[in-house]
Amino acid sequence: MTLAPRTGMRQFVIVGHDAPTTPDFSLDDLAGAAGRLDVLCRCVSAAFFLSHDIREDVRVHLVLGDEYTITVDGGTVRRLNPDERSTAALLRKALAEREEAIGHIPVETSPGVSLTRRGFAGTLDDVAGDGTVIQLHEDGDPVVDAEPPTDPVFVLSDHRDFTDEEAAVLADTVDRRVALGPHPLHANHAITVAHNFLDTDGYESY
Amino acid sequence: MTLAPRTGMRQFVIVGHDAPTTPDFSLDDLAGAAGRLDVLCRCVSAAFFLSHDIREDVRVHLVLGDEYTITVDGGTVRRLNPDERSTAALLRKALAEREEAIGHIPVETSPGVSLTRRGFAGTLDDVAGDGTVIQLHEDGDPVVDAEPPTDPVFVLSDHRDFTDEEAAVLADTVDRRVALGPHPLHANHAITVAHNFLDTDGYESY
Repeated sequence: MTLAPRTGMRQFVIVGHDAPTTPDFSLDDLAGAAGRLDVLCRCVSAAFFLSHDIREDVRVHLVLGDEYTITVDGGTVRRLNPDERSTAALLRKALAEREEAIGHIPVETSPGVSLTRRGFAGTLDDVAGDGTVIQLHEDGDPVVDAEPPTDPVFVLSDHRDFTDEEAAVLADTVDRRVALGPHPLHANHAITVAHNFLDTDGYESY
Repeated sequence: MTLAPRTGMRQFVIVGHDAPTTPDFSLDDLAGAAGRLDVLCRCVSAAFFLSHDIREDVRVHLVLGDEYTITVDGGTVRRLNPDERSTAALLRKALAEREEAIGHIPVETSPGVSLTRRGFAGTLDDVAGDGTVIQLHEDGDPVVDAEPPTDPVFVLSDHRDFTDEEAAVLADTVDRRVALGPHPLHANHAITVAHNFLDTDGYESY
């Protein structure tokens, strides 16, 4: 069983290379002992939050240590707040139920948050058919020249580059490589810019 | 004494309505007892960080409770990290030296971070002459139609709207009102989009 895609969805797959795969981490040291989970928390916040609103047609897949994937669905998620610490607590709760995740069957660990025992290749394979797979990369085509895709699936890495193995998986799957500007951005900032690019398509007529 | 502006600078004034004005807050509850200091920390991160780099020509002014202003200068700041908690620690350190801030004379509380005893009107008055004062507001002119300004001074509010009094001060000072898209954004996301708008001006030719 996997979540069915919705038309007009924006999905983000974010690879957390050093991210924890157990709940044995402190919320007081997200940027240290918790393997830069702060980066992934900021990505979640960037993906879902508008001012006083949540983007319902967004789904985020956090790949943790190529072993588990936590999926957050904007249409059903509850108890999500924009700060890093509370998001990390939601993710830790998901990892606490990792024994329940068998094979590729997701287990819902809180409303709108589910955990699957699979890594990058399995997650990418699952969502690749949902739309246009886009790698955000500084060497890609400038976004200003790009035609906005429908049902985009953006693939990003955390503070580390994709490994050679991940890059090979991506190369087989990716439909487009897009650069959001002349400077390489943090993953969460890239998500914000990607949203804005899609939001403002045809914005002159608003 | 105030910091001299540099040509090509981007400045951001962010008003923290509930932000602490003393260092008596816990880093464990930034989104609660610390008066949504998490919002201001994310704004700092959005303003300064590129992937593996810092935007040196950026200056951020955080107005805390209309009583103090903490200024962070990208050209000289040290020990700045992208996570909320470590940024909050830097801000708390600045507030711990608030007794040293007399009148409008800033006190440097760590490299590139200074504290001044003044509120919104005083801070805005100080930076207004540095460039084009721009209010980011959902009812402003669509950014896609806007000519990128030189030396912009962006003025934003935290999770609350500007008070009537602040709005009156702003109305007297603001040069332009710009909307970044059809949806109201969190302040930190607005900063990211504003940077991207300026970064990608003429981006086709990169």
